[in-house]
Amino acid sequence: MSTRAAAGSGRPAAAGSPGTGSAAAGSAEAAGTALAAGSAGTVETRFLDLPGPVRLDSGRDLHPVRVAYETYGTLSPRRDNVVLVCHALSGDAHAAGVSATAASTRDGFGAEDRDGAAGRNLGWWDGMIGPGKAFDTDRWFVVSTNLLGGCRGTTGPASPDPATGQPYGPDFPVLTVADLVRTQRAFLDELGVARLAAVAGGSLGGMQALEWAVRYPDQVGAVVAIASTHALHPQGVAWNAIAREAILRDPAWQGGRYYGTGRAPDGGMGVARMVGHVTYLSGPALAAKFGRRLQFADDVRYTLTEPEFAVESYLRHQAASFVRRFDANTYLTLSRALTYFDLAREHGGGSLTQALAGVRARTLLIAFDSDWLYPPAGSRELDAALRELGKPVDLHVLDTPYGHDSFLLDEARQTPIIRQFLEAQ
Amino acid sequence: MSTRAAAGSGRPAAAGSPGTGSAAAGSAEAAGTALAAGSAGTVETRFLDLPGPVRLDSGRDLHPVRVAYETYGTLSPRRDNVVLVCHALSGDAHAAGVSATAASTRDGFGAEDRDGAAGRNLGWWDGMIGPGKAFDTDRWFVVSTNLLGGCRGTTGPASPDPATGQPYGPDFPVLTVADLVRTQRAFLDELGVARLAAVAGGSLGGMQALEWAVRYPDQVGAVVAIASTHALHPQGVAWNAIAREAILRDPAWQGGRYYGTGRAPDGGMGVARMVGHVTYLSGPALAAKFGRRLQFADDVRYTLTEPEFAVESYLRHQAASFVRRFDANTYLTLSRALTYFDLAREHGGGSLTQALAGVRARTLLIAFDSDWLYPPAGSRELDAALRELGKPVDLHVLDTPYGHDSFLLDEARQTPIIRQFLEAQ
Repeated sequence: MSTRAAAGSGRPAAAGSPGTGSAAAGSAEAAGTALAAGSAGTVETRFLDLPGPVRLDSGRDLHPVRVAYETYGTLSPRRDNVVLVCHALSGDAHAAGVSATAASTRDGFGAEDRDGAAGRNLGWWDGMIGPGKAFDTDRWFVVSTNLLGGCRGTTGPASPDPATGQPYGPDFPVLTVADLVRTQRAFLDELGVARLAAVAGGSLGGMQALEWAVRYPDQVGAVVAIASTHALHPQGVAWNAIAREAILRDPAWQGGRYYGTGRAPDGGMGVARMVGHVTYLSGPALAAKFGRRLQFADDVRYTLTEPEFAVESYLRHQAASFVRRFDANTYLTLSRALTYFDLAREHGGGSLTQALAGVRARTLLIAFDSDWLYPPAGSRELDAALRELGKPVDLHVLDTPYGHDSFLLDEARQTPIIRQFLEAQ
Repeated sequence: MSTRAAAGSGRPAAAGSPGTGSAAAGSAEAAGTALAAGSAGTVETRFLDLPGPVRLDSGRDLHPVRVAYETYGTLSPRRDNVVLVCHALSGDAHAAGVSATAASTRDGFGAEDRDGAAGRNLGWWDGMIGPGKAFDTDRWFVVSTNLLGGCRGTTGPASPDPATGQPYGPDFPVLTVADLVRTQRAFLDELGVARLAAVAGGSLGGMQALEWAVRYPDQVGAVVAIASTHALHPQGVAWNAIAREAILRDPAWQGGRYYGTGRAPDGGMGVARMVGHVTYLSGPALAAKFGRRLQFADDVRYTLTEPEFAVESYLRHQAASFVRRFDANTYLTLSRALTYFDLAREHGGGSLTQALAGVRARTLLIAFDSDWLYPPAGSRELDAALRELGKPVDLHVLDTPYGHDSFLLDEARQTPIIRQFLEAQ
């Protein structure tokens, strides 16, 4: 087990202690924060070093690998109540509760407005994970890891390459969703968890859940894939390509070797985030929030360089906030992984039905009709293929207004569906 | 009249000679090009220097102003058959026929595939302008100008600032659609054209047509506004803001003073074009053309920097092609102008109906159901407001697959509608 701290984590390695959870209930008041009923409490991100290498789709073996994680709830004596939640492109291990340390990644559209989440360091799925919530921590032991390739404690491009002692940068391997899942599998081995009661996530997180069900059919009881798909559609491939181009074309990217140079591709990263942000929202949501409202007074100021419309100012704010907390090479790595993902190509010789033939988990699919980045069509194709195979599957298409971000924002609609699905276990 | 050639035009000033047109029928074979029946022939872009300044919305007077233009057909003795066609964000004066000099701007989606337009230097609306076409040059004298702020012969940010002798760069005034139209008005004065039989355009071109009808109600007989709107919707404002951010954040932009430095913001411009390109297409069109087809063989190569999917390679090609022919400061200027455009705010105290109250032209609106950048909703709002006022208006929403680019690509569907509308004059 490596004892070298992952770059950027600034925390010592700590072996996992399965069964305790990292939520320290009752310490909320001590932290000076008034928690709502149902909070997972004050939590800390912990770290675990895998004992062996992770074998990747590209053929490389990656070692050492550290995994940042949080847990919520209590592991049952039979270790049969584990729910793995998988984060999306810009998330991290801090999925629920109030972090004693980490800055929140819950800065999606609307989140700040609703509850000042950023200031309280709430987990990115805090509305879904906690006592009495969709993923009820009174019943389930919920595990959340930062993805391989991440920049929030798990080994990624900013971590030191053992061959050089310097950050990997562009020498970090190119990853697939399968690689992310293999890493989670190896991590859970260390926690002594052989089987997942459920694996859940939205967007890229849902892709991981689906990959789990296909790759480890005997080790997954149920899949919850929200606002996700078996393969990103071509326009989504294009948007992700454009976001990556914005980073690659920023001279400060320096071929990926920007660590320690005092310069980072913040300009390109900001543009990437703006593109992402608009694709995560629905057009009507953007119209309702900003319309064509001018930034200052009631007329334009005739400037090319300063925001004239409120939406321009909002996008700049989002970009600046994202650049402060996220690493560009991680963005490139995870964006590439999610565009590669293609269950039919990878597991079915081009046939989605064939790819899913071995699935033994029950599957819950939730899609949002205003989501044009991961539109309901992808979930419908999964639903049809599973039904054709006689597998148990539920599909819910919800008419929320928030677009793709609905999986982060509309807990109220998702909660009863997920609770009922998990209780039927 | 200034005798200084506009930067980048490389051509001497030439006063307009109304009545002759610039199409030289019969010279096509001499140019070694086999023309389809109905071609406007071989044409040359010409240049006219306005005698006085153009007063702009920002309060500035711009002088000198040179206008690049082409004409097709013959001006009638009563000068009552003039149709002004207005180009969109990335167009120029070369709207029809085969240019003896200019590189084609007709590099939109599909255009190259269909007829090798780029190689033949066809005008960007060649399918619509010519003998027997939608804008029938046997009947109409069609005039096309490069917009103020342009980079294809008309005075723009790359032109010399008379105060310094150096290119304006960021000192070029910030423009509105009204400023573009005022310049066209002053240009037509020099041609001796007091009244337009019709003014037509798609996208930003349609905005100009609408502005003409509102600003000069007694001088416009008919308006043809295609794939356009009275005010870009908020998501469109966001996309344009992101495209501009990509340019502004490119260090090679150098605050707009990149002329003569040997560096231009090609990286940012490329990203801007990619964003534009995806918004000009429909998702289904992109899926039909590329799907998730891999660029090489049948598997991925595990690279972050090279294209893996065919659509990535296509976007890079589009970006490289655009950067060669277009100026970044012009992009900024015209992108800003089209996002400012808001008929209700500028002319109606917030009311579209009030803004249109003085219109005397007949109006033809064409929209495309696959166009999500200028969706039919904008045309429907114009249609409803004009009907409420008792003005003559026709609205056609066509079910073409190409998205916003349909106004450039689907001439077959538009032609009978436009011909019939103009003949009813």
